[in-house]
Amino acid sequence: MSTKAEAVTVDVPAYMQETGRRARAAAKQISRAESGMKDAALNAIATAIEEATGRLKSANESDLAAGHRHGLDAALLDRLELNDARIAAMAEGLREIALLPDPVGSISDMNFRPSGIQVGRMRVPLGVIGIIYESRPNVTADAAGLCLKSGNAAILRGGSEAIHSNQAIAACIHEGLAAAGLPAEVIQVVETTDRAAVGELIRMEEYVDVIVPRGGKGLIKRISKEARVPVIKHLHGVCHTYIDDLADIDKAVRVSVNAKTQRYGTCNTMETLLVATAIAERVLPVLAGKYRDAGVELRGCEATRRILPDISVATEDDWSEEYLAPILAIRVVDGLDAAIEHIDRYGSDHTDAIITESLPRAQRFLREVDSSSVMVNASSRFADGFEYGLGAEIGISTDKLHARGPVGLEGLTTLKYIVLGDGHIRT
Amino acid sequence: MSTKAEAVTVDVPAYMQETGRRARAAAKQISRAESGMKDAALNAIATAIEEATGRLKSANESDLAAGHRHGLDAALLDRLELNDARIAAMAEGLREIALLPDPVGSISDMNFRPSGIQVGRMRVPLGVIGIIYESRPNVTADAAGLCLKSGNAAILRGGSEAIHSNQAIAACIHEGLAAAGLPAEVIQVVETTDRAAVGELIRMEEYVDVIVPRGGKGLIKRISKEARVPVIKHLHGVCHTYIDDLADIDKAVRVSVNAKTQRYGTCNTMETLLVATAIAERVLPVLAGKYRDAGVELRGCEATRRILPDISVATEDDWSEEYLAPILAIRVVDGLDAAIEHIDRYGSDHTDAIITESLPRAQRFLREVDSSSVMVNASSRFADGFEYGLGAEIGISTDKLHARGPVGLEGLTTLKYIVLGDGHIRT
Repeated sequence: MSTKAEAVTVDVPAYMQETGRRARAAAKQISRAESGMKDAALNAIATAIEEATGRLKSANESDLAAGHRHGLDAALLDRLELNDARIAAMAEGLREIALLPDPVGSISDMNFRPSGIQVGRMRVPLGVIGIIYESRPNVTADAAGLCLKSGNAAILRGGSEAIHSNQAIAACIHEGLAAAGLPAEVIQVVETTDRAAVGELIRMEEYVDVIVPRGGKGLIKRISKEARVPVIKHLHGVCHTYIDDLADIDKAVRVSVNAKTQRYGTCNTMETLLVATAIAERVLPVLAGKYRDAGVELRGCEATRRILPDISVATEDDWSEEYLAPILAIRVVDGLDAAIEHIDRYGSDHTDAIITESLPRAQRFLREVDSSSVMVNASSRFADGFEYGLGAEIGISTDKLHARGPVGLEGLTTLKYIVLGDGHIRT
Repeated sequence: MSTKAEAVTVDVPAYMQETGRRARAAAKQISRAESGMKDAALNAIATAIEEATGRLKSANESDLAAGHRHGLDAALLDRLELNDARIAAMAEGLREIALLPDPVGSISDMNFRPSGIQVGRMRVPLGVIGIIYESRPNVTADAAGLCLKSGNAAILRGGSEAIHSNQAIAACIHEGLAAAGLPAEVIQVVETTDRAAVGELIRMEEYVDVIVPRGGKGLIKRISKEARVPVIKHLHGVCHTYIDDLADIDKAVRVSVNAKTQRYGTCNTMETLLVATAIAERVLPVLAGKYRDAGVELRGCEATRRILPDISVATEDDWSEEYLAPILAIRVVDGLDAAIEHIDRYGSDHTDAIITESLPRAQRFLREVDSSSVMVNASSRFADGFEYGLGAEIGISTDKLHARGPVGLEGLTTLKYIVLGDGHIRT
């Protein structure tokens, strides 16, 4: 370690290139590792993390102390903290990943062709995954687990504010990998806090196959702009619920309240409520009462304010705002077409829901709303890898190519074609 | 059209922005179009092309004459030419695309989750596809057909040497779209030959979802480097056949001859033959005779030349060469491990095959060779969208993300999550 650390102070590009070279070599080994070996490593890392609880907390205290000194705000300090419960949750998360089916090597769609060859597809790892994240040190364990299970090597680059916590977790990861007979280079946690390391990581096309940034919109925009390596982006969530005039009022109220108030700071929280004119007078007063009780500030269009005169005015900016807070924009729209048009114009292609009893309207909404998750009579808060049955997620993609919506193990793999013949030739 | 043409001479960026804006609007319409309407358009375009045979040939003659004046070589002039057979083939290709199942809207993996919601995935178009290609005007019809069928809008930018042919085909496409009641903006063929149009197209992130370049390695490298829009790349094919020592000699000879000689200029043609030491003396002399008869120049490693002393020497450069010509590099390797190592080091991740009767060796080769197509006892020439049953292909991707190998209709679509509830909320 000391040699590497010295190299860092001297030459970040050289250090990152070396990290990339090692990752590429390790990727070959982990892509061929048997499922049992990978699961053994995941369980061994979990055990190592539990046994290192004391060391992890003391490393984390160094980070927290530095955070206090640097004046990090309370929310950031909270995200940075590792306590007994969070450490136990990291270990538990790794054991759950070990229990998921191994996606690697699974063969699908194997069919005979008229020429006599059999053609199918095999799921294989992407190779080397670079993950760039902020504050929360548990991402180090989560991301390592998902990359390992999906047969990829990973280069993890956490925030400088969590460097001691992340390095302590890295030691547990390496202990677990060694116990299972896998090389430490499968999961490398970048040891320098120099920001130049990120610039290198996102440009090492030879060594890195995909970058997954986890953090604020600013970080992700910057990385996408500068990266030469493909990026799985998760920008932001301006999620809508549209209450159709053919909605069941009870369901509309239940779902709309949950979509806004179940948690405020998540990307799948509803930020704008759209209500059909014909049902607005019946549903809005009931909803307003519930939101008032929950302490949600309402901002409405003119038509909304004719029904709810006490709420404040929604401006044009409100329609594209990701509040991540107890604030809700409400707009009365003519009907389904106007709702789809609003979502198309102001939404972020993340998650949008319709509340309706009408089958044709549900069908049209599902088909025509171009978002990563489209829902009928359900809370947008369900847009999540665990809720969808992916077992875990490394992020939610608002991109269209490769992975869309919650990205689990499958999103960290790709399909290659396999062909079986018996001396077949093309004529 | 005259207004557009005038705009072009004045301001290419403005013209391309306007093209992008129209494509984005048209993408919405075509993504929602019923299958029958899209198929009607495809058939109407086919008919329009057949009926315009005379006009297409005369437009093509202008291009050919200009090509001669500019000294294009014979191969390029051949690719540029539209004759009766090629025009009929374009029409036939469109009718075949019409017969393929519509990928859009198909729902898969719909399952109930413990929370009570039903989660599945729906296949949807990517949006706007930009295609940049050279010489062969039939790409205009093929690409238009695939984009239309998969519910995407397209901006097609062909080579300047084919501008008259491409514009004549564009007129047929617009005639067919109009006959089916679809807007002309679904398929736009760029009317300017100014190269600045390409620079704009690959940077219009707001309007274009993916770029598919079809052409030489140089073009694709340049586009990938400068693009802001994601690119589905097809770089080159350095394809291998490895004859294992447990191969059947007859199958080995049949497949290896076909993989090299069935066509020389295609990316799935074998460029390097690897032969296990233990079988080399038995198989190489037979193969050499066949290749000699076919007029293939052989270049061998030292061990190969001990068996075939008359052939020339393969240098280090030969191992990574895509000849696209009747030349074959031959290397004798110790066995499976050495073969996989060679492919890993010198290959282009396109298509690689093993010839063996051994199941475990076939399994290892399929699993460990990281190429878009991996084959057992079959000719690499099978790596093709038609042969794989995709119906047609827009290209072959050597990328790992999104699409790998031959890209058909599925590669021009993506999956979004759909969720059905009945008033379900997250707790």
